[in-house]
Amino acid sequence: MNKRTNADDVVNADASQAETITKNQKTTLNTSKVSNFSIIESTLREGEQFSNAFFSTEDKIKIAKALDSFGVEYIEITSPAASEQSRQDCITICNLGLTAKILTHVRCHMDDVRIAVETGVHGLNVVIGTSAYLREFSHGKDMEYIIEQATEVITFIKNKGLEVRFSSEDSFRSDLVDLLNLYKIVDKLGVNRVGIADTVGCANPRQVFDLVKTLRSVVSCDIECHFHNDTGCAIANAYAGLEAGATHIDTTVLGIGERNGITSLGGFFARMYVDDKEYILENYNLDQLREVEKLVAGIVSVDIPFNNYITGDCVITHKPGTHAKAVINDPEKYEILKPNDFGMMPGCLIEPKLTSCDTVKERLEQLDLILSDDEIKDVTTQIKIISELKSLKLVEVDVFLRSFHKKVINAHLNYD
Amino acid sequence: MNKRTNADDVVNADASQAETITKNQKTTLNTSKVSNFSIIESTLREGEQFSNAFFSTEDKIKIAKALDSFGVEYIEITSPAASEQSRQDCITICNLGLTAKILTHVRCHMDDVRIAVETGVHGLNVVIGTSAYLREFSHGKDMEYIIEQATEVITFIKNKGLEVRFSSEDSFRSDLVDLLNLYKIVDKLGVNRVGIADTVGCANPRQVFDLVKTLRSVVSCDIECHFHNDTGCAIANAYAGLEAGATHIDTTVLGIGERNGITSLGGFFARMYVDDKEYILENYNLDQLREVEKLVAGIVSVDIPFNNYITGDCVITHKPGTHAKAVINDPEKYEILKPNDFGMMPGCLIEPKLTSCDTVKERLEQLDLILSDDEIKDVTTQIKIISELKSLKLVEVDVFLRSFHKKVINAHLNYD
Repeated sequence: MNKRTNADDVVNADASQAETITKNQKTTLNTSKVSNFSIIESTLREGEQFSNAFFSTEDKIKIAKALDSFGVEYIEITSPAASEQSRQDCITICNLGLTAKILTHVRCHMDDVRIAVETGVHGLNVVIGTSAYLREFSHGKDMEYIIEQATEVITFIKNKGLEVRFSSEDSFRSDLVDLLNLYKIVDKLGVNRVGIADTVGCANPRQVFDLVKTLRSVVSCDIECHFHNDTGCAIANAYAGLEAGATHIDTTVLGIGERNGITSLGGFFARMYVDDKEYILENYNLDQLREVEKLVAGIVSVDIPFNNYITGDCVITHKPGTHAKAVINDPEKYEILKPNDFGMMPGCLIEPKLTSCDTVKERLEQLDLILSDDEIKDVTTQIKIISELKSLKLVEVDVFLRSFHKKVINAHLNYD
Repeated sequence: MNKRTNADDVVNADASQAETITKNQKTTLNTSKVSNFSIIESTLREGEQFSNAFFSTEDKIKIAKALDSFGVEYIEITSPAASEQSRQDCITICNLGLTAKILTHVRCHMDDVRIAVETGVHGLNVVIGTSAYLREFSHGKDMEYIIEQATEVITFIKNKGLEVRFSSEDSFRSDLVDLLNLYKIVDKLGVNRVGIADTVGCANPRQVFDLVKTLRSVVSCDIECHFHNDTGCAIANAYAGLEAGATHIDTTVLGIGERNGITSLGGFFARMYVDDKEYILENYNLDQLREVEKLVAGIVSVDIPFNNYITGDCVITHKPGTHAKAVINDPEKYEILKPNDFGMMPGCLIEPKLTSCDTVKERLEQLDLILSDDEIKDVTTQIKIISELKSLKLVEVDVFLRSFHKKVINAHLNYD
């Protein structure tokens, strides 16, 4: 628990704090091929499409600050053309003075682009509105129209001195030749990145690797990837994209987004931590992950899944028996993700200190269980009694706390 | 909701029911390379290692029947050598007369194997207890010892007429040459399957593909895969394994297991459904998935994650705006997993019927929110009032129900 930061600290953290690693330092620190990436954190864009997300301006500011403090390179926000409120919020976030660059996600229309470039964003993530374009494109109908429109939009953004990414939707169900032709043209127009998006979540890692590898040989600009998680491959696909030469990965906190969402920030870092632990620890404040997730989970009214990467309740606990002895003797044998690096306490050890009200209260908060002070006193006394009879492991305490909490809730609900 | 089966129906379903597809039929139906697999469902073994899992005999029977009714080919249960209760439960499950074959997971020791073969199981999933063996093995120390022990165990099991799988632990951190040597020997001894296990959850799909492809060229028996999900690749790794020639995939319901678990049954089926929908729909009762998950979630006291594959609350809802119109006009454009195939109702449509107490109660149950009858009446009245002012989408009703539920809980907790 040593280095855990509380939510207020995170959101109030000064973006220019000394420990922030600059991009230049990053370049020199990077030793692994697949660690040569930037995060485009899209909780404030893709995440705003999540069914439970209704962000206030205040929510957006808190989330942006927390992500910046965590160390993401880019924060992507909803198009200022979506509504007057979105436009104002976009300006507000640009004026926060964050280290992360601010991007906004706009359709390939001059109407949207003209509004966006005036907000103070560092760059525009331009998307062709629907894959229908590419379907018609494949019949040769709209080729000229698309090129004309893309040229106007890209030239306009570049003349404003801003970054520009150009992306299709539903890239894995589009005609490959058309896609490559289009991207070759926008690459020559000088875009910073082209993007591929698995909008429906149907792609598998092999398909991703092949598409990115092919694209890598066609364009000289950076490649951004956006993967939905409908079929459970969003993290693996991001990794496969990087293996094939992609440079930018879209994530959201807890993976929230349309349907069951996209590559989750925490899950992606679990993956990359295993690949190049030193690089990840140097460049991101992993110990803030749990607080960032709690912040967003609270705002969108969801519980953090029990099996969430790294920070889930059950992730760092080991059941007494089979592996527990091995874990205690040699944690690295079964735990490739060191709990301490993520501001978490290891879960397999006996925690006699969990018999004070304060520590029980703290653990209850970690488990997202709410009890009154009297109930906390009550459950602490019960744990004390049991712990005098037998040594309790944390997992056993957790089970006891959950069971106690369930009883309390049921008692409340049956009060009539 | 049309074809949804309730939990009792699932667990009471007659295993020999007419719609069960036999293995022979399966073979003729299979048209896709990666659909040529069997599920080894390990909720009653790996899942029993989950920190919150304390299965009673009754729990085990319910889970086994539900899995059998869903259509898994194998059910793997905890070693009967673990305890007298485990042994009795093993016999009980073997006597249920299920269609699924029953396997038990035992160490490569004659002590354990002798107990297991007397329980009535169809086969033994033998595992070398720790990767330490293979580490020593790589120094040449224990080569003879391992071969001797494996030979005795495998021959004994085969003489009893039972299936036998032989697997290492932590296959991805073991010496490759030693692993292949050992598997080549046990293949010649006539094992039905060799297994590879990513015990710590560090493998990525490319590594899996390469290892299975290599192994495929060395052994003639089937190949089973077991993937932990610490770094978010358990589903993608299972898929990569099948692409490379693996034949059997270990799953658990909701992915429960050590730490954050293994390949989830539902997530794996989301992946395979996209690959070969007809095959999956023919061979498994997908519309029972939600009930199987609710059964297990209830027994191990966890909430089904909001973003759970297919069945999560937020998965089939679309936020009004961006994509919603496209989804209503042409669901396949953005929904590759058809909600009806999984016994779910589509989430993007207006649900005026949600203004009766019964339907609100049903929706509350789907969201795992508990309210008293009076509170349900109260919230239904409020929804009715709102729905007269504006047309409500299901996602909006859900947000309203969650918010109402939160207020009720808070009111109960602040009763003092």
